Amino acid sequence: MSDRDLSFWGWGYAEKFPDEDERRELKDRLETMLGFPERELRDPPALDEVSIPDSTVSVPEDLAGVCSTAIEDRIRHAYGSGYRDIVRGFRGEFESAPDVVAEPETEDEVRALLDWATENRVAVVPYGGGTSVVAGVECDPDGDDAGYAGVCSLDLRAMDRVLEVDEHSRTARIQAGATGPQINDQLREHGLQLRHYPQSYEFSTLGGWIATRAGGHFATVYTHIDDFVESVRMLTPSGEFESRRLPASGAGPDPNRLVLGSEGTLGAITESWVRVQPRPSHRAKASVRFADFDAAVDATREIVQARLYPANCRLLDSREAMMNEVAMDGSHVLVLGFESVDHPVDDELDRAIEIAEARGGTVSSGPRYEGPHRDDAEAGGSDGGDEDDENDDAGEWRSAFFEAPYKFNALVSMGVIVDTFESAVTWDQFDRLHAEITEQVTATMQEECGAGFLSCRFTHVYPDGPAPYYTLLAPADVGRELEQWREIKATASDVIEEYGGTITHHHAVGRTHREWYEAESPDEFRDALRAAKERLDPEGIMNPGALLESE
Amino acid sequence: MSDRDLSFWGWGYAEKFPDEDERRELKDRLETMLGFPERELRDPPALDEVSIPDSTVSVPEDLAGVCSTAIEDRIRHAYGSGYRDIVRGFRGEFESAPDVVAEPETEDEVRALLDWATENRVAVVPYGGGTSVVAGVECDPDGDDAGYAGVCSLDLRAMDRVLEVDEHSRTARIQAGATGPQINDQLREHGLQLRHYPQSYEFSTLGGWIATRAGGHFATVYTHIDDFVESVRMLTPSGEFESRRLPASGAGPDPNRLVLGSEGTLGAITESWVRVQPRPSHRAKASVRFADFDAAVDATREIVQARLYPANCRLLDSREAMMNEVAMDGSHVLVLGFESVDHPVDDELDRAIEIAEARGGTVSSGPRYEGPHRDDAEAGGSDGGDEDDENDDAGEWRSAFFEAPYKFNALVSMGVIVDTFESAVTWDQFDRLHAEITEQVTATMQEECGAGFLSCRFTHVYPDGPAPYYTLLAPADVGRELEQWREIKATASDVIEEYGGTITHHHAVGRTHREWYEAESPDEFRDALRAAKERLDPEGIMNPGALLESE
Repeated sequence: MSDRDLSFWGWGYAEKFPDEDERRELKDRLETMLGFPERELRDPPALDEVSIPDSTVSVPEDLAGVCSTAIEDRIRHAYGSGYRDIVRGFRGEFESAPDVVAEPETEDEVRALLDWATENRVAVVPYGGGTSVVAGVECDPDGDDAGYAGVCSLDLRAMDRVLEVDEHSRTARIQAGATGPQINDQLREHGLQLRHYPQSYEFSTLGGWIATRAGGHFATVYTHIDDFVESVRMLTPSGEFESRRLPASGAGPDPNRLVLGSEGTLGAITESWVRVQPRPSHRAKASVRFADFDAAVDATREIVQARLYPANCRLLDSREAMMNEVAMDGSHVLVLGFESVDHPVDDELDRAIEIAEARGGTVSSGPRYEGPHRDDAEAGGSDGGDEDDENDDAGEWRSAFFEAPYKFNALVSMGVIVDTFESAVTWDQFDRLHAEITEQVTATMQEECGAGFLSCRFTHVYPDGPAPYYTLLAPADVGRELEQWREIKATASDVIEEYGGTITHHHAVGRTHREWYEAESPDEFRDALRAAKERLDPEGIMNPGALLESE
Repeated sequence: MSDRDLSFWGWGYAEKFPDEDERRELKDRLETMLGFPERELRDPPALDEVSIPDSTVSVPEDLAGVCSTAIEDRIRHAYGSGYRDIVRGFRGEFESAPDVVAEPETEDEVRALLDWATENRVAVVPYGGGTSVVAGVECDPDGDDAGYAGVCSLDLRAMDRVLEVDEHSRTARIQAGATGPQINDQLREHGLQLRHYPQSYEFSTLGGWIATRAGGHFATVYTHIDDFVESVRMLTPSGEFESRRLPASGAGPDPNRLVLGSEGTLGAITESWVRVQPRPSHRAKASVRFADFDAAVDATREIVQARLYPANCRLLDSREAMMNEVAMDGSHVLVLGFESVDHPVDDELDRAIEIAEARGGTVSSGPRYEGPHRDDAEAGGSDGGDEDDENDDAGEWRSAFFEAPYKFNALVSMGVIVDTFESAVTWDQFDRLHAEITEQVTATMQEECGAGFLSCRFTHVYPDGPAPYYTLLAPADVGRELEQWREIKATASDVIEEYGGTITHHHAVGRTHREWYEAESPDEFRDALRAAKERLDPEGIMNPGALLESE
């Protein structure tokens, strides 16, 4: 993958931007199915028409080989991949592009860069896949980086190697700039995989996952990057932070947990020992339909409280199911999947189905059991080591999962506001939270845009609560769409805050969520974190304005 | 339980100190089985013969109702329950007893106490069960608390209520001073249990578990208190630290993780929402014997890497098996147990046995399956809600587990050095670590004491490594036993440090492990932690010398 293959203004590969026919079909669907007023298809910007301010930073000679001030590099590192980013990209607005882009290949180069930046008070923004949806990789020149000489985007993707594999302990030492596919490609010869699949998997990096506490595709147990990290290495302006490789420890607060979620504000993560796994040998899956949403929620709760540990336990509400063409009959769908590297998981699936049926669910797809020794007619047996088989436990869902972000590009091009937001909340508070979100966000879309669509799914479930994930669509007044979006986003965030959810289960805080993060997190904790930051980053150069207010 | 029923000098209930006949039997066993030179039985001290220095602290009138400077109270809060503590207790040496003992019943009283202590620079040591084995609840008057007006032991056991139960989310809000039995007693009417069973379960408290990152009895998945904590409330000298109740969150570094393992150095934990569970309805268990230790280790690794999630997966080496009378034939024993609140776990046990047998293991006890609908002859069916059934999945082992600490009292009384130490290490390094520990610790015991016994078990196992736990016995030169112990302890700790283990998997750092904690943890992390502490505890009154060097 070369940076040059990627869209400079939107999500993913440039060539995957849908052609006019496809976009027209999507537009027609929105107008007829959702009743949106007629939308106008617009063309994306051309790179050579974009202009940005001159760089305010001059790079010293010894860093010249690592740094670039080329306009294209700066444009390509200006934003993450949230709705607001894509809108600005589509408009060709890149005023807040960084002044310089560094692409180090070694830790020594990272260290030299941090020393130079500290000395010259240049803000440094660690950059991986550029897939942040919370303005995590963007410094606002009129705001938080005021007082800095400029902004340097520290792109770590040249550091993309699996350095060591310990097959006995099933762990690997991996550089922070490696993307999902790069990691699995290098692990393949060892018969191992990381099996961490955030939606940004194709582009995002190990370092980015750790910095933002990424959530993987799986519903329970080992899914968060937090649980994969055995040790981590981070270069801070004041020195090296390296934790010891340990399966577990009770020695003081966990040092890894200070790095996990630090969002680049303490230093640049350079490598990590992570827990890896063989490819699953056994799988079992089914989809269950429910007429009643509350019953589906109860069934989901009972399955996770039974500690059956499903790999997939994704409840789609009827709108989500319809949008993803999983069910067109108004049903809510619970997608269940189990997998194991060792033993059949048929009984677990059967028990989960039993629980779902007791709540009024009807199996609509499957049960389907897969395993190496299985020869019954139902077996799928897709054990062929195909490149992208990581999520083949629910085929129709999986392609939609990785393709969904591309829809953002198309939707922006036709003047549709599109966003996702997510939370986690205890079961006792979910019903209220969900009802309020549905009512208030829909009302705000109606008020701001005259129409709107909102759907919900559970991405992860816990014995004490679900992680609901919402997708919204609304017709924009082109030119005013960011103001409209801001109102809708604020409504959603305010309701989450008021009804006891977290402002983010796995999208991180960045700059977009900071206001609500401040309401949610203990003041004393943020004070402690700020003190820690001052110790590790005395000049405050690391990603100022992300997570914590810049001082 | 009243404090007055407990031994003031040793572990647990005073009345459980074995009588002379029992002690003589134990003494004979050590002499004949382990070849120890003849030991002399000595009698424990009498409370009224103990003298301690006068308190240096005068308590203000508004705190008089909460505080005591009575000699007995001060003596009873002098130490934890490590070998060194019991030896000093048995000698009647309590010079470092705190100057005052506070027993608040409300948060307001805790707050007033912290304000007074901050103003008067009195060191405050949060105290729960007093079961620390790492000098976590003891301030050294000649060392770390130099410069303080005195030491206050902050006993939180009067705050012992379950305040709220959310049956729907399976969580409960519990005060920090509640002990294991107090928690389960109050949860019983809701049909719930905490199911967290550290060896100190009878006496230690929720707050203590959180402060020290306690490990429970179970071998895999939900066993560490870390995983039970949904939110936590801590009073710091600079204000209240309260995290939000959430099943999960990706918003910044996890605030709970700063409190978990903080060992009283940041504030006093007052309550926590924790995840609770119904009583398991299904169980399956077996013991497997191995002639070869390496084969047993391989089998254990394969079982945990198969992600079968056993509740019990305790490998006892032949010495450990013999000492606990589990196997007298020189076998190593793997004790396997599975349990579920929902479904049979027979298949999981069968598969684990299959893996063990493939490595040369032989089932010696069980398999035994228990469940509500089971009527075969093998069923135990102990579903009677008996007071202490929490660990009945391996009967012989379980009583030994909770009784073991009482042996410390008896052994000290007969001049035997007894201690346990533990670690966690990746599988690839375990063999070397274990070989070196066995060789060097045995050699040091031989050198210092002329004889010695060392046994090993795995308390917890992870896909990437085990948590080995060692028990040692050696004949002491009475009067010089602490010097001898210190040499042995240093040898063990040095080897752990050198061969890549953690200085503690679940015993915590306290003061005993601080030197090795400093070697193990990233300097930059301790710097950050110190900065956080200075922010939350500006006068440095909270448990000075625990975890971090006092400044």
